[in-house]
Amino acid sequence: MSESRSWTYRDAGVDIDAATEGLSKVKPQLRRTFGERVLTDIGSFGGLFDAKFPSVDHPVLVSSCDGVGTKLKLAFATGRHDTIGADLVNHCINDILVQGAKPLFFLDYFATGKLSSDTVAEVVGGMARACEAEGVALIGGETAEMPGMYADGEYDLAGFIVGMADKSRLVIGDRIQPGHKLIALPSTGLHTNGYSLAQKVAFDVAGHSPQTKLDELGGESLGDALLRTHRCYLRPVMRVLEATDEVHGMVHITGGGLYDNIPRVLPSGCRAVVDGSSWQVPPLFRLLTEWGNVPPKERFRVFNMGIGYVLIVPESKVSDVCQQLRDSGEQPWELGGIEEGETGVTILGVD
Amino acid sequence: MSESRSWTYRDAGVDIDAATEGLSKVKPQLRRTFGERVLTDIGSFGGLFDAKFPSVDHPVLVSSCDGVGTKLKLAFATGRHDTIGADLVNHCINDILVQGAKPLFFLDYFATGKLSSDTVAEVVGGMARACEAEGVALIGGETAEMPGMYADGEYDLAGFIVGMADKSRLVIGDRIQPGHKLIALPSTGLHTNGYSLAQKVAFDVAGHSPQTKLDELGGESLGDALLRTHRCYLRPVMRVLEATDEVHGMVHITGGGLYDNIPRVLPSGCRAVVDGSSWQVPPLFRLLTEWGNVPPKERFRVFNMGIGYVLIVPESKVSDVCQQLRDSGEQPWELGGIEEGETGVTILGVD
Repeated sequence: MSESRSWTYRDAGVDIDAATEGLSKVKPQLRRTFGERVLTDIGSFGGLFDAKFPSVDHPVLVSSCDGVGTKLKLAFATGRHDTIGADLVNHCINDILVQGAKPLFFLDYFATGKLSSDTVAEVVGGMARACEAEGVALIGGETAEMPGMYADGEYDLAGFIVGMADKSRLVIGDRIQPGHKLIALPSTGLHTNGYSLAQKVAFDVAGHSPQTKLDELGGESLGDALLRTHRCYLRPVMRVLEATDEVHGMVHITGGGLYDNIPRVLPSGCRAVVDGSSWQVPPLFRLLTEWGNVPPKERFRVFNMGIGYVLIVPESKVSDVCQQLRDSGEQPWELGGIEEGETGVTILGVD
Repeated sequence: MSESRSWTYRDAGVDIDAATEGLSKVKPQLRRTFGERVLTDIGSFGGLFDAKFPSVDHPVLVSSCDGVGTKLKLAFATGRHDTIGADLVNHCINDILVQGAKPLFFLDYFATGKLSSDTVAEVVGGMARACEAEGVALIGGETAEMPGMYADGEYDLAGFIVGMADKSRLVIGDRIQPGHKLIALPSTGLHTNGYSLAQKVAFDVAGHSPQTKLDELGGESLGDALLRTHRCYLRPVMRVLEATDEVHGMVHITGGGLYDNIPRVLPSGCRAVVDGSSWQVPPLFRLLTEWGNVPPKERFRVFNMGIGYVLIVPESKVSDVCQQLRDSGEQPWELGGIEEGETGVTILGVD
């Protein structure tokens, strides 16, 4: 290397302008998410959010952080970068919704080895659309270019969300009792969990590709079926929470499935007993678990198996809550009930 | 692949237990960061933070998201994972401090290909110590295992912080005027910026290794000098903000250096003129820029060049503010001033 060679940041693989260019493409979309509580412009150090809530007796902030896991690998393989942002936003919204919180604002972390301004714009644009759709301000984020940390064309994503609930309306599970019932809402697919195993069995074991079309999936390609967007339960669930204070627990079925997630809200001495015959496991899950010969209990730990969200209510409220959910276009069903027993989950027909 | 082979999540490279084990090691440390405003236990879906501030007239939440860039590569190369968490926490605190916000809570994202419970514990433990030292609640986070996304032994980190300021005490730069002065506080090293270029010139161009000891660095190894923790300016700066409302702008010198960061707070028609001879550029920056023959302006865009934080105050307040900073053990100096002109930065002696 000649001594007279001058090294710049760009020579070292970092191109600050590419990030700026990518973000400038989605600036109008970002601005549309702001609403009247965002007090600052994009480009300041921190996002400013008005937190004076005069009509709320005791505001509590509920926050969460998440990623989308190896669902990213499918975005890379298919070149579709416009939906993974919604996966992340919706996942984060659901994670704080379970405690009764309405989302206020969201920030993202986008990290890659070599920035493509187009990919930044697609990914962040997807987040902005999802935020706008749910009334969440995309108030900030970090776009990091880290040469050598990620393979060509790959990136990682993380999302951070802050929401608010009045303290007296927090849903924390402490009033759950034996005799209460579980109401399930369907997932749209794998949401953002189980993708490492799904891709292993679909591509490596069964030998399919993302382009494979299968009759069992109604002709949808495997890539499309796997990429289906993680759905957001905010509107239908908020409608229920506004109508009753008798939703005593809610569960977002993410990594760990029914087995690991339901116990996160159960008080001691309460066991959730799930009726494994109360719903039809969707074809995508049946295919994946058959290809991988995935043991029965493992299926319900790795995958959501068709269940995206669970509400726990007294038996007397089941019919009202299901009707409110149907009024919002949902297809709820009674999944099971709470019994006295060791804190945990039994899935009848599985274990 | 035999049809009878049963696939589990662990077979696909995901070990939920390793994350749980790593986090359980640091659970007491995490809990020590909580303080009285955290309403939830670890393991709930979202972190709950009491946001009733009766003594604050109009609370505004200030949030930010950041990573530590390729400083991570030095942690990998040296096997030191206990300080990178403090880099992240302190970076985030400084980013919202510039707007006058006191940090409330922090969440982290830790992503890796193959989880080591020891590394999780070291990294998250480092974050917990930094949070505890600055009175910030480490309220949640995500530990993601993504087979194939990261090289063996590597990981990425992102941090997310939320702080609060009374609206009337926000520092947003709108009252900055020509005649105001810049006060600088020293950095401890590169903080978290410029690492791609630094490692390129130190290791590839100059042929050193992290273990190389250099007289210019007082015998400190290059790895240690580069890994020095990004420092936090919270205490000394908060002390100044409590004593005066005449700090009109503050700047955290991060990616983009003096040139890109100072303009983020300047009103139109204000130009910052920095006296390039007002401080001694520390030896580490001199070595890196010499090895790389980095052009003068580029040096001040990629590296902080010894300046970590800048306060902008009226000339009449310079001596008081500097004295308050010295009382906190700081070594501030007058870096330059604001002049009428195009919004931007001139560094005398450089451009």
